[in-house]
Amino acid sequence: MKALVYEGPGRKALEERPKPEIRSATDAIVKIVKTTICGTDLHILKGDVPTCTPGRILGHEGTGVVVEVGAGVTTFQKGDRVLISCITACGRCEYCRRGMYSHCTTGGWILGNVIDGTQAEYVRIPHADTSLYRLPENLDEEALVMLSDILPTGFECGVLNGKVAPGSSIAIVGAGPIGLAALLTAQFYSPADIIVIDLDRNRLDVAKRFGATATVNASEGDAVAAVMKITENRGVDTAIEAVGVPASFITCEDIIAPGGTIANIGVHGVKVDLHLERLWSQNISITTRLVDTVTTPMLLKTVASGKLDAKKLITHHFTLDHILDAYETFGKAASTQALKVIIAA
Amino acid sequence: MKALVYEGPGRKALEERPKPEIRSATDAIVKIVKTTICGTDLHILKGDVPTCTPGRILGHEGTGVVVEVGAGVTTFQKGDRVLISCITACGRCEYCRRGMYSHCTTGGWILGNVIDGTQAEYVRIPHADTSLYRLPENLDEEALVMLSDILPTGFECGVLNGKVAPGSSIAIVGAGPIGLAALLTAQFYSPADIIVIDLDRNRLDVAKRFGATATVNASEGDAVAAVMKITENRGVDTAIEAVGVPASFITCEDIIAPGGTIANIGVHGVKVDLHLERLWSQNISITTRLVDTVTTPMLLKTVASGKLDAKKLITHHFTLDHILDAYETFGKAASTQALKVIIAA
Repeated sequence: MKALVYEGPGRKALEERPKPEIRSATDAIVKIVKTTICGTDLHILKGDVPTCTPGRILGHEGTGVVVEVGAGVTTFQKGDRVLISCITACGRCEYCRRGMYSHCTTGGWILGNVIDGTQAEYVRIPHADTSLYRLPENLDEEALVMLSDILPTGFECGVLNGKVAPGSSIAIVGAGPIGLAALLTAQFYSPADIIVIDLDRNRLDVAKRFGATATVNASEGDAVAAVMKITENRGVDTAIEAVGVPASFITCEDIIAPGGTIANIGVHGVKVDLHLERLWSQNISITTRLVDTVTTPMLLKTVASGKLDAKKLITHHFTLDHILDAYETFGKAASTQALKVIIAA
Repeated sequence: MKALVYEGPGRKALEERPKPEIRSATDAIVKIVKTTICGTDLHILKGDVPTCTPGRILGHEGTGVVVEVGAGVTTFQKGDRVLISCITACGRCEYCRRGMYSHCTTGGWILGNVIDGTQAEYVRIPHADTSLYRLPENLDEEALVMLSDILPTGFECGVLNGKVAPGSSIAIVGAGPIGLAALLTAQFYSPADIIVIDLDRNRLDVAKRFGATATVNASEGDAVAAVMKITENRGVDTAIEAVGVPASFITCEDIIAPGGTIANIGVHGVKVDLHLERLWSQNISITTRLVDTVTTPMLLKTVASGKLDAKKLITHHFTLDHILDAYETFGKAASTQALKVIIAA
């Protein structure tokens, strides 16, 4: 089969690989129908993710059709159309039983990281019963690819952790795909003000179309001052960090109102300054989370009921044969204006 | 009347001052019966609290008897025995209505800070209806002084913010009065493991007597390694920071388990390193809070019902005439083994 393989920092190739086979009774083999590229894949390609070693097939998102199941799989059978979760969960360990699937002792984020992933014609899914979701009928399959990772990540790490509430004020720092996923799902809870901050004018325009009540272009001046002006010097109840660099986290510290929550989504590579000398008395919370995908069934219902238009996030289409072009387009988002790209296997 | 007056960094004196008078319809004048000294008073004396200017009568804790009330005070009258909350709350502003009394727009921590405090024969209490509590009959008045600040602080900022739960593991970094207050009130919720970390052997012995299941003397080796050994490399579900320096906060970052909460109580003077490069994926929360004293009525009931022996925290007694000796004793806790000192006015 064809597969996109990580060959070490800065290198990747579309290669011919053997089809995956059942290794454990709880495995399923899925024929990929649609997949996509995540910002995390770009991190891997930079050499930032040491757990992912050369030779790995990348990708942790996608939809497909079950072609084979192990003897222990009871929820799915050959022919079922499924959504693949970016998080593999045994459903049995202490963390899974607390809903912390991301910390599953034999799973978590392993696809396209420590085991081969979804940017291929076929993928092996361990713990299939608790790591796949049946696709609803009559829904746009492309849109559902957004539920593998990006929408539960924005929703769980940003919106739920951030305690977005009716009438509250929120700021989203970073209008990339993850920040926009938080923007879309924050609106489930009817906040009063949704301020989106970014350096890129196009992404801020997208944010406006997606429901931001105000946008701040941080390349044009003091973003903190702008947010304080918009909020009449109160700051925001929820600040969602959706970049993963110290500067954007510090912005969250500077705009959080007393009693507020800073919800971190960003993948950070270095420490940040926490200004406890100012924040110790401010009754704030800071949360971190690797997406658990516990809300995937909930999000499927919001798509099915028309409350969430997941397809909005898709800007480009490719076939697996042209996945290198897809990487090129996704990696140069500032010029291509790419959000999420769909790859048909 | 006699009063302990802050005279600028490093200087204080017991002085003769005029009795306070009613200034607003919502004021009460309270004749102090018992008061105490807080670690925060020592911070003021070091010059660390710029809002507190020379000439200020210190103190934000105590019990007493109402001797006069303004025309707008309806809950209390002359002769009522009362507990003074360290937090003054109007009960009407946006923050008060959210239970964030510490951020009351016309109150908060003002006593012994921006208005004269309780280390005197009399004190003026603004917003008296919502800043005083009626003392229950037949309870030891000294013990109740611990409910002005230290016990609600340990409980709200440490135990409640830290989500201490039955069967959970907690670590308290710092066994000073505030850490010990967290230790006592954490036991309301039946955690399985309560590890207390300090540099002082005497305070760790006290912690053992107060219910710690394990103690770690950080002066004798690697405290993080010791906690990881006790918890079989899992870390703790709740880490309570009760010191207020970067090193103790970093210890909390190093011992927190996935899904855990770092609850900060300490008053910090400088920023700390937040190791997001490791913690971003660990599903943790970090909380800060200035005590709101919303749990004072609850804590009064725990004392009345014998669930909380607040008197345990008291080690020394003085009269107001000897308050300078009391400061000396409290300020040299390592040699005097002082926890809380009671001053009879």
